[in-house]
Amino acid sequence: MFIEKLEAAQEKNNSLVCVGLDPNAEKIKAMGLGLDDWLMSIVDATAPHACAFKPQIAYFAAMQAEDELIDIIAYIHDQYPELPVILDAKRGDIGTTAAQYAIEAFDRYQADAVTVNPYMGGDTLLPYSQRADKGVVVLCKTSNAGSGELQNLTLDNGRTLFEQVAVNANNDWNSNNNLMLVVGATYPEELRQIRSLAGDMPFLIPGIGAQGGDVQATLNAGLRTDGKGLVISSSRGIIYAGEQLNDFAEKAQMAAHTLQNTINQYR
Amino acid sequence: MFIEKLEAAQEKNNSLVCVGLDPNAEKIKAMGLGLDDWLMSIVDATAPHACAFKPQIAYFAAMQAEDELIDIIAYIHDQYPELPVILDAKRGDIGTTAAQYAIEAFDRYQADAVTVNPYMGGDTLLPYSQRADKGVVVLCKTSNAGSGELQNLTLDNGRTLFEQVAVNANNDWNSNNNLMLVVGATYPEELRQIRSLAGDMPFLIPGIGAQGGDVQATLNAGLRTDGKGLVISSSRGIIYAGEQLNDFAEKAQMAAHTLQNTINQYR
Repeated sequence: MFIEKLEAAQEKNNSLVCVGLDPNAEKIKAMGLGLDDWLMSIVDATAPHACAFKPQIAYFAAMQAEDELIDIIAYIHDQYPELPVILDAKRGDIGTTAAQYAIEAFDRYQADAVTVNPYMGGDTLLPYSQRADKGVVVLCKTSNAGSGELQNLTLDNGRTLFEQVAVNANNDWNSNNNLMLVVGATYPEELRQIRSLAGDMPFLIPGIGAQGGDVQATLNAGLRTDGKGLVISSSRGIIYAGEQLNDFAEKAQMAAHTLQNTINQYR
Repeated sequence: MFIEKLEAAQEKNNSLVCVGLDPNAEKIKAMGLGLDDWLMSIVDATAPHACAFKPQIAYFAAMQAEDELIDIIAYIHDQYPELPVILDAKRGDIGTTAAQYAIEAFDRYQADAVTVNPYMGGDTLLPYSQRADKGVVVLCKTSNAGSGELQNLTLDNGRTLFEQVAVNANNDWNSNNNLMLVVGATYPEELRQIRSLAGDMPFLIPGIGAQGGDVQATLNAGLRTDGKGLVISSSRGIIYAGEQLNDFAEKAQMAAHTLQNTINQYR
């Protein structure tokens, strides 16, 4: 069960930090490292401070690195079996095709959860959510500057579109209790509103660090009363804290540890 | 320029048919064929009746067939250079990540166009649309039964969400004149409304055939006055018209030809 695995990892490592794995081919090559070696070093360095890893499949796909994506997820399962892997893929398609994407994420890559886009409707999320042991992380209010163009439109019932997504996710799409929502750290007021609509559902929070989201505002707005319910993801701020062969892993470790501590200070 | 290539192909082959390439590993294996051979046979059989091909990347990804996807797109470009390839991937992510997906679609796979999801906002479509020679096919009103759950919500300006997507696509997102919209054949009234909002923008129309969309209703609702503006996609109805080794290609050819004729009868 994905949510249980996630929350057990948050307890064990006393961390809400999710380490985003967005491999930049040029930076890694400049260090004279292979992709597999760089990924394993980053994972080893940051695992003690993390509750999850989030590989971004776009970076792997652009560089034809499907094998390396399989390898690093298998490595995480082998070395850190308590830490779930969220495949950031933002997939979305009609049911028969979504079933293929579920195979891609859960069987081919062995991810514990996958991010998905709700625009096509709840029926298109079923092929993922029917896998009761896996997690489905639904885009709600994304971290980018233009996310409001559609997501903040007001409906005739007075809700915004992102609020309606939160309501439908909580009321209609979550029969297996394996859903999460994506809410950008760059929008703490929206995060507060979504928390009020989505019960105890955990949220994946991108946008801390390079995108400018604030840790304290995020925790104030989105934390559950049990001090959990948030998975705060940082990619560039951790994995490229150092770009030299002799200290990139140490700097990634320090950056993950610092973020872990900053978050825990406000929990 | 993608739109020009597409419309030239529609003229040359006197066809609005797009052949969807959704390879089903079991069916192909049951015929004793390799994936590459099956794909080339389907392409050769249907190319004279088509204006485009649309490989669905989910099927390739589920069976670890990235190499075969590269191969078949290269084969189409080599043998039928007049026919554009629309990679059906429905990607969507923040700008820095979307740039990686643009590399995946346009550079790695050499697609002429890619389908994308607008939920995250117009800024996330720029990495694709900035490639002025390439096409960007934006989900507007999709063909699935549950598409209305979000897409048909009414906004406080009186428009539905899918109408707003059509308006934004036409007014704000199309500075390079390389956008299309996805509109399901299963919703002819919505198609008519979108045509009234989106000017001369071409539409990609899934949902004919296995999903139950009607050809005549689709043409009545969406065709431009010049008899173009629609790309009518069929996958299963063409590529699995036959499932025997000795006649699958002939039956695919006949199905594509029949759809071409049915469409042209009502144009």
